[in-house]
Amino acid sequence: MSAYASVFKEARPGVAIVGAGAMGRALALRLQDRGYPVLGVVSRTRAKAEALAQVVGAPTASDRLFDLPPPARLVFVSVPDGAIADVAESLTGARHPWRETVVAHCSGSLPAAALEPLAAEGATVLSFHPLQAVSQEADARTLENVYVGLEGDAKAVAAGIELAVGLGLRYLVLTPEAKPRYHLAATFASNFLVTLLGMVQEVLVSLDLDRDDGFTLIEPLLRGTLDNLAHHAPEEALTGPVVRGDLDTLQRQGLTVSRHLPPAVPAYAALTVETIRLAVRSGRLDPRRAEDALGLMQRLVTTPLPSRNRQRPTQPEPSGPRPAQPRDTEPV
Amino acid sequence: MSAYASVFKEARPGVAIVGAGAMGRALALRLQDRGYPVLGVVSRTRAKAEALAQVVGAPTASDRLFDLPPPARLVFVSVPDGAIADVAESLTGARHPWRETVVAHCSGSLPAAALEPLAAEGATVLSFHPLQAVSQEADARTLENVYVGLEGDAKAVAAGIELAVGLGLRYLVLTPEAKPRYHLAATFASNFLVTLLGMVQEVLVSLDLDRDDGFTLIEPLLRGTLDNLAHHAPEEALTGPVVRGDLDTLQRQGLTVSRHLPPAVPAYAALTVETIRLAVRSGRLDPRRAEDALGLMQRLVTTPLPSRNRQRPTQPEPSGPRPAQPRDTEPV
Repeated sequence: MSAYASVFKEARPGVAIVGAGAMGRALALRLQDRGYPVLGVVSRTRAKAEALAQVVGAPTASDRLFDLPPPARLVFVSVPDGAIADVAESLTGARHPWRETVVAHCSGSLPAAALEPLAAEGATVLSFHPLQAVSQEADARTLENVYVGLEGDAKAVAAGIELAVGLGLRYLVLTPEAKPRYHLAATFASNFLVTLLGMVQEVLVSLDLDRDDGFTLIEPLLRGTLDNLAHHAPEEALTGPVVRGDLDTLQRQGLTVSRHLPPAVPAYAALTVETIRLAVRSGRLDPRRAEDALGLMQRLVTTPLPSRNRQRPTQPEPSGPRPAQPRDTEPV
Repeated sequence: MSAYASVFKEARPGVAIVGAGAMGRALALRLQDRGYPVLGVVSRTRAKAEALAQVVGAPTASDRLFDLPPPARLVFVSVPDGAIADVAESLTGARHPWRETVVAHCSGSLPAAALEPLAAEGATVLSFHPLQAVSQEADARTLENVYVGLEGDAKAVAAGIELAVGLGLRYLVLTPEAKPRYHLAATFASNFLVTLLGMVQEVLVSLDLDRDDGFTLIEPLLRGTLDNLAHHAPEEALTGPVVRGDLDTLQRQGLTVSRHLPPAVPAYAALTVETIRLAVRSGRLDPRRAEDALGLMQRLVTTPLPSRNRQRPTQPEPSGPRPAQPRDTEPV
């Protein structure tokens, strides 16, 4: 390919959506909102295809891949990662002008090459991954301001840029080699944030707080922390005992985790080690004090858990299930 | 004490602030905004005391604890945790009507008893901890909608409630035994969120992305995830490879961490284990698949790191400093 022009012949090509889950729905709503004609929705569950087709005014809804509307010059394969290769293989059996069609999947971790069977038919294959946590309640604004991770050959990337701009999104072009790290960053930011909140909820529930109250309680802190991060690097935004070099508080905190949430000790210690690393990078934590803090974490993960009953100090703490109720009082 | 009435004799008692850091500043601004006369600011750094006193119109600014204005019926000790006991001890030397004064510290982890020397003088001692990440740029709205963790005896808690309501805040009453867990929850929600972002930044920087671009890129994902958490329990809000039971993606991700961010392997693995636990609790991850995922994490932390160079597969990866540049390509 020594030259190529605008990939889509029309400013708003017709689109087919394969997969009517949360991401398919969010994309279909955004496409419709931005003037792209959604020509058809295909889903293994016919009712889901019909429901989404109705919402976006698509004339075709089907549970068969062969019902892909031939005028669609853009096909979104918004199915689970594990199903992408199979769907691509099956789509090769559909009568479709593949050479004039861009096929995009929405996986965060797989390369465009996961659509290889369609590339062999002449389709332009693209990885188009909106960097957003999309739930079933998504609407046309869910993708607002979102970056899309694009990966594919030069023509595929050009199509991805056309599409991102048409949808009012921003984009990030990735090599196949960079994509797994991009996905890792997304996992840290999204999945692990949910996981942190899961741990917070466990702590709050152990204090007899209602789960819904729990989030209300912590929400201003989370949003305040994000607001700080919007204006400061993590090194500068960091607060708390680690960056203050407050070893007494750190030691008490380690005791609290091992006593009340023993299974969370590894995650607590590993995150504290990362926090120490960040604090040292910030220049605000003295390296010698950092060594002492690392030593505390080392002892926390290697020391047997405290006994359940002070009368029987030799009995080891079971490391298995988390206790439903708080145990003896905290030393303060 | 068989009965007690409103703790403060005036609806808006005069206040003294000891400690002109970020929290002292945020409190002073909120107090002034809500009609509390700020009578004086004391700080070890005279210039800081004067600067804050000027902003909130306080008539006194000093670097000596003995300059505490006697009419102040509320004293906020907003100094670092490690300095609270010393400040309390030193304050006993100030001529002050302690029996008519409420002294509050703002530590998240220490009990009201850290102010014991002042309690011995007859002061009502209170732990008053706004559950917010407060930075130097705080204004009167920084504490908006924030919960305050209150701990102390019955009269101290009553004073804390009066104060929280007067400041337009919400409150949470804690026993001394519960407070360390409350502080642990705050650490998970705030410090560790910053730490996650630090890890995200490291990944993005390894992709040659500018640090500022990095946050812009990830911000919609973070805010979208928080919006999901505002409406759903973490079990329901969880997305990503773990809850999908997508072991292939999980395995590739483990390889990516050990190759590009080897020191982050423990934190990645421990957080993934917590994510697996959360996914099983959600009922969306089959326990047998969870076992396989846990096995992957077990192998990730026990397998020697991959060799830097495929030509020399026997050379172990140094586990020390993080490589500045990405290495060989990712298997996808």
